[in-house]
Amino acid sequence: MELSEDELIAAIARLRSADEPGVVVGLGRDDAAVVEAGGAHVVLTTDLLVERVHFDRSTISAHDLGAKAIVVNVSDLAAMAASPRYALLGIGLPADVEAAWVMELYGGVADACAEHAMTLVGGDTNRAGLVVLSVTAVGEVAPGRAVTRSGARVGDRIVVTGSLGAAAGGLALSDGTPAALSEPWARALVDAHARPVARVGEAQVLARFGASSMMDLSDGLTTDLARLCAASGVGARIELDAVPVAQALVEGATELAIDPLALALSGGEDYELLATMAPEAVAAARAELREVFGVALTDVGSIEETSGIVGVDASGTTAPLAPAGWDHFRTR
Amino acid sequence: MELSEDELIAAIARLRSADEPGVVVGLGRDDAAVVEAGGAHVVLTTDLLVERVHFDRSTISAHDLGAKAIVVNVSDLAAMAASPRYALLGIGLPADVEAAWVMELYGGVADACAEHAMTLVGGDTNRAGLVVLSVTAVGEVAPGRAVTRSGARVGDRIVVTGSLGAAAGGLALSDGTPAALSEPWARALVDAHARPVARVGEAQVLARFGASSMMDLSDGLTTDLARLCAASGVGARIELDAVPVAQALVEGATELAIDPLALALSGGEDYELLATMAPEAVAAARAELREVFGVALTDVGSIEETSGIVGVDASGTTAPLAPAGWDHFRTR
Repeated sequence: MELSEDELIAAIARLRSADEPGVVVGLGRDDAAVVEAGGAHVVLTTDLLVERVHFDRSTISAHDLGAKAIVVNVSDLAAMAASPRYALLGIGLPADVEAAWVMELYGGVADACAEHAMTLVGGDTNRAGLVVLSVTAVGEVAPGRAVTRSGARVGDRIVVTGSLGAAAGGLALSDGTPAALSEPWARALVDAHARPVARVGEAQVLARFGASSMMDLSDGLTTDLARLCAASGVGARIELDAVPVAQALVEGATELAIDPLALALSGGEDYELLATMAPEAVAAARAELREVFGVALTDVGSIEETSGIVGVDASGTTAPLAPAGWDHFRTR
Repeated sequence: MELSEDELIAAIARLRSADEPGVVVGLGRDDAAVVEAGGAHVVLTTDLLVERVHFDRSTISAHDLGAKAIVVNVSDLAAMAASPRYALLGIGLPADVEAAWVMELYGGVADACAEHAMTLVGGDTNRAGLVVLSVTAVGEVAPGRAVTRSGARVGDRIVVTGSLGAAAGGLALSDGTPAALSEPWARALVDAHARPVARVGEAQVLARFGASSMMDLSDGLTTDLARLCAASGVGARIELDAVPVAQALVEGATELAIDPLALALSGGEDYELLATMAPEAVAAARAELREVFGVALTDVGSIEETSGIVGVDASGTTAPLAPAGWDHFRTR
């Protein structure tokens, strides 16, 4: 069954909401969308998801894929302490894609937009030799309030939200390890990879507690922390025992034949927040994240004057942590 | 020769300009870009260009492709009477693409951005099974000054800039007609398809002369006019003799075995402006476009109360003009 243009239009119509605050000209109405910016700064990010590089249609549902395309962009806005507002979706679809799959994909896009109070204001739909999703997300932040990667100061503590490594575990599972998906740990890992969560509210709490720098963990802690340190002109010391390894990863380690800590340090797509803040602010920020969002905030180390990132284990042994995360420019 | 990540970074570095006005956090510096919006409304558009659907690497240079990806988005901003400000570029590159090709592509992106005083503030670079370019363009317009598709009024004249059909002629040529590319008309057609021009300044002049509606001609006059009429709740009458058929198309008609008028009415990718305005405003707008830009403005018909679009020929015979333009959702 081939997707007809009418079916596609019906799918897109699910996303054409009624008049939304701030939208002057919305989705599918003109050459471009027009939105109000108020007095805020405009925050812009874009991500391209390409079949057989970022996902396989056989291992992620269309709904999860549509939602994930939005969420990974929202996560980038969150990491600037911005509020998501608008999204644009460019999509390429091969002729063999079924209408039901596309409807489900747009349903995932709509659900993720709704969850983050975003309005889809633009799009472009095309045939393509493989499935391509391109999302641009637009957010707002009060002037001077964006939290960049470049503000980390020597003596700051390094904190991360949630736990790490589960998405990489899920990727390892979906890449072919014939694991028992009936196991709760396996389902948790696959879910973490297919249904990431963007920490929007959490990021704004960290900003309010004076986070000096912040980014989202898309490419793995060591890789992303190296970027943050480079942008800030500092080094870092990670207390390996403190790294919050995802519980499901620990439970599945033997079956997956992986080192949970190694995956928590290097695995991509966790979309947790990595931030730096003054030591005296950590406890209160942690308490508020736990109370408001039920999300852990873990102190994993400190910003140092010396360049490079070192890990220190329980015995006090220190060794350089080479960046070993996900390289976007490498085929999976 | 395979493209290395270092070579790719060098290509992108060509686009990392110094501090640009309005850019708070620019390209490659953080999770997202941050820009000032001033008091203006923000205008947003996105276009996805996919290899073997929108272009073939064998028939367009990398420089032209990079520039065209920007220009087709600028054209959408122009059609809202907006001023281009920022762009984001998502790119997917197969492993067989050579570094020199990518450098040339980014050169085209940089040149087109410079021509339109745009700053590239964001991007995403990935491996992909085929070349994919996703551009999001961000513009500004004073509140209430965007010219939409929905304002055409009965009695308005219908005007188009430049001439029509050349890009479709160039596509026909590059699709395999073994034409003599040494002929000036053939080169002109291929150029029109490979190097479209966005009518930014022209659109602002038309807006200043009170254009009641406006859009860019990306999918062919009859298709796009039908959209404008549908959005405005009106019909249209086109004087076929008045349609400004591209001269090169007329010259190549016999060799191409095409009807120049038919291609001027239905061919896509001209990126000329289609606008409606009060009859008394046309002459002055035409004079200013000719004087300032050397660009023709042609009165091709009138907005009518009756629905649908009719063409009237020199003998006064009237016939419905069915939309017959480019359908994005059809493989070439």
